[in-house]
Amino acid sequence: MASKITSRREDYSRWYLDVIREAQLAENAPVRGCMVIKPYGYTLWEAVQSGLDRRFKETGHVNAYFPLFIPKSFLEKEKEHVEGFSPELAVVTIGGGEELAEPLVVRPTSETIIGYMYSQWVQSYRDLPILINQWANVVRWEMRTRPFLRTLEFLWQEGHTAHATAEEALAETLQMLDVYADFAIRDAAIPVIKGRKSEREKFAGAVDSYTIEAMMGNGWALQSGTSHFLGQNFAKAFDIKFLDQNNAMQHAWTTSWGLSTRMVGAVIMAHGDDQGLRLPPVMAPIQAVIVPIYKKEEERAAVMDFARAVEAQLKAAGVRVHFDGREELTPGFKFNDWEMRGVPVRVEIGPKDVANNAVVLARRDSSREIEAAGGPKAKQFGVPVEGAAAAVQALLGEIQASLLSQATAHREANTHRGIASYDQFKQALESEGGFLRVHWAGSSEDEDQIKADTKATIRCFPFDAPEGEGVCFYTGQRTERIAIFARAY
Amino acid sequence: MASKITSRREDYSRWYLDVIREAQLAENAPVRGCMVIKPYGYTLWEAVQSGLDRRFKETGHVNAYFPLFIPKSFLEKEKEHVEGFSPELAVVTIGGGEELAEPLVVRPTSETIIGYMYSQWVQSYRDLPILINQWANVVRWEMRTRPFLRTLEFLWQEGHTAHATAEEALAETLQMLDVYADFAIRDAAIPVIKGRKSEREKFAGAVDSYTIEAMMGNGWALQSGTSHFLGQNFAKAFDIKFLDQNNAMQHAWTTSWGLSTRMVGAVIMAHGDDQGLRLPPVMAPIQAVIVPIYKKEEERAAVMDFARAVEAQLKAAGVRVHFDGREELTPGFKFNDWEMRGVPVRVEIGPKDVANNAVVLARRDSSREIEAAGGPKAKQFGVPVEGAAAAVQALLGEIQASLLSQATAHREANTHRGIASYDQFKQALESEGGFLRVHWAGSSEDEDQIKADTKATIRCFPFDAPEGEGVCFYTGQRTERIAIFARAY
Repeated sequence: MASKITSRREDYSRWYLDVIREAQLAENAPVRGCMVIKPYGYTLWEAVQSGLDRRFKETGHVNAYFPLFIPKSFLEKEKEHVEGFSPELAVVTIGGGEELAEPLVVRPTSETIIGYMYSQWVQSYRDLPILINQWANVVRWEMRTRPFLRTLEFLWQEGHTAHATAEEALAETLQMLDVYADFAIRDAAIPVIKGRKSEREKFAGAVDSYTIEAMMGNGWALQSGTSHFLGQNFAKAFDIKFLDQNNAMQHAWTTSWGLSTRMVGAVIMAHGDDQGLRLPPVMAPIQAVIVPIYKKEEERAAVMDFARAVEAQLKAAGVRVHFDGREELTPGFKFNDWEMRGVPVRVEIGPKDVANNAVVLARRDSSREIEAAGGPKAKQFGVPVEGAAAAVQALLGEIQASLLSQATAHREANTHRGIASYDQFKQALESEGGFLRVHWAGSSEDEDQIKADTKATIRCFPFDAPEGEGVCFYTGQRTERIAIFARAY
Repeated sequence: MASKITSRREDYSRWYLDVIREAQLAENAPVRGCMVIKPYGYTLWEAVQSGLDRRFKETGHVNAYFPLFIPKSFLEKEKEHVEGFSPELAVVTIGGGEELAEPLVVRPTSETIIGYMYSQWVQSYRDLPILINQWANVVRWEMRTRPFLRTLEFLWQEGHTAHATAEEALAETLQMLDVYADFAIRDAAIPVIKGRKSEREKFAGAVDSYTIEAMMGNGWALQSGTSHFLGQNFAKAFDIKFLDQNNAMQHAWTTSWGLSTRMVGAVIMAHGDDQGLRLPPVMAPIQAVIVPIYKKEEERAAVMDFARAVEAQLKAAGVRVHFDGREELTPGFKFNDWEMRGVPVRVEIGPKDVANNAVVLARRDSSREIEAAGGPKAKQFGVPVEGAAAAVQALLGEIQASLLSQATAHREANTHRGIASYDQFKQALESEGGFLRVHWAGSSEDEDQIKADTKATIRCFPFDAPEGEGVCFYTGQRTERIAIFARAY
């Protein structure tokens, strides 16, 4: 089984595609650049949906739905927006057998159509704020695609809010960034870094874009969710105006924020190892798999009965448990199979365990290597069956925390600090990759030059920057600004 | 408030549109035939989603996601299917600024692309059954549209399953019809009738289509969900083949089943009255609204504190409660507003109630007229505050049951039986409308003629048909077959 997956060291891109194929997460569709999300992969997306939707509702947002099709003229109303998106559009020109008078764009994002609707809904300060989210599919005609990370069509949520003041809109923008970070850290066990995007990397039409950036297993960055302060740009383009409390007409202040099926790619690459997926228990479709083990037919009934009772106990405790009763496969094959699919806990039950009234618990986040390096024991033997559910739940909690701390340690080990020159910068990037955390006083043109030279871009200006003043590695100027450069998906 | 809604008797179509506008369920989009589903309407769709998704998973189904775009050539592989759908297609001809070599159809339904994928996934009987559902948007280029009932783009779920035998596929088709009926009856309080579609009304490409048919307030029928036995039609068109247990190559047997945002229209029209919506408690976004009532400023604090405590009690008991603390509006206005929006229970709290340590409960499913006709009391006074949550929960249960029994009584009162001739048929339809439950031995051509004469169609051949043999009103032949004719949306 493991041999079907290329090692990460050998070829990280192939490793990623192998894991997606072998774990049955997704497949290429017969339409270029599109994917089919298979049930196991879709369940991970459902975990993203439920984790976010709950947080959106707790922060006062409601869901709604806006049309898939946008009149082409709408896109053209915000200058930067249309420049950013027009090369990527899919356009419907025929409907019901007839050529359309005005072509319809398949939404690449919905600021324009939602802006139009908000202009109808907002008259007075009493109509504000509007706090709406939408779960939807969007289409961007990408040329180079990769499952989950960049596909022609993808699934996401897009929040769109309108406010009476700039302060309130900015607070909303940052609140939703916090929501994304909270989800990424607590549910996906990914230690994302919050920060602001550079001018070059911000959303087309935004005043400022904010991001959560994650480090993948190969040291590359993945932008995992973004929140945009749109200022009055879209309000002016779409005439979202209101009478304020002093009876003066004002343009509203808007925000938008999105997180997509990319997050599934982030989970694969932040935690996966050469055996395959390692899923954080909060999101795992199956949290614990039970593998009954017997050699002789006379052992079968006792093992199966015992194992079914353990299954019932785990189910009753709310653990998402799967019983692997496949007859034609060996236990060893099943171990590899479920390791590859990233199930956090394996419960092994053989005749000796039945005799001892106990089970064996194996944890996916450890291994002989990790154990040897001082990490947690990969297997616990003789766990008493009476407390099996509690033991599994405790273990799930430990695994969730351990995946986060492993990913954090990986990020820290692959973050380069104290870079004093562009040569050092290039050397670090070339030899080790990872995040380059540097003082930065360069211009957008400097940023372009570095990208052209090295393929690294500014991932963000991190909020958390205790470094204080220092010297920009590129310009030599003194500055307080910290930038994180990295190669990115 | 009520005056903004046309009475049903005056103009049922206008009543429907008025309710949708005033209750803020949806709005026309700036794209012809498309709607914006507003938050209150979308919450009803979320209730449909959660009610169905739970039932799908309980019956062993998993969710997945297939692409929005379908190569045009795929549609053409099943002859009846392409004939049925080709007049309704939206076609993408431009992507990324360039004309596409093969145009892409925006999915009107996904049998073809899913059939193609299943042909890749199925090799052996061990790969069957496949039990997949997808939540998605679809597009059909309809010329005459009406919010929720028929829109160019709509939201739905579409289940697609593949099986080794015809028996198993048929059992699945009927199981999912049962799931739809169970949802409609228990959650939406709509007493749907299960039955089989006539040849004329079945899905393009199906062997047989099954339906749940609901009666709306004006006596018209609404097809509210359908489940199709596709035989081997799509398996042959897409080459879904497997080696059976005897090592012989077989085509699979497939099914598909769908239920859409139409269901929201069904809820509006099955239960609404001249005041507006009446929502079944299981689906209602707000189950109970609290309206504090005071005239003098010195009463305010006591009423508000008391009302907030009741809110906390209801919330703790799991009731979806809303506190209407709007200062600028009178209690009478609020009463009308929440009645119009269909909230099942109103909790009124004034100074006298505070003094008596009690609340007033008003139920939306009754009225002075219904009460006078022997129905339940529209208002309960002096409900002790200690047991308020339990009283509200009991009342919600009663309302759920009462809406179902009111809709059942309405359906029975508007179902015509014992029709002996086509003249009687036409007279009943013209004078009273409703369902015409008749013996039927006619042909498809006879069905067409009746439709041309009267606009009534066969809604279904109901499963539950205790009538036994009788005489067909149209052909005079003796038959056991019962058909339900009606005008339909």
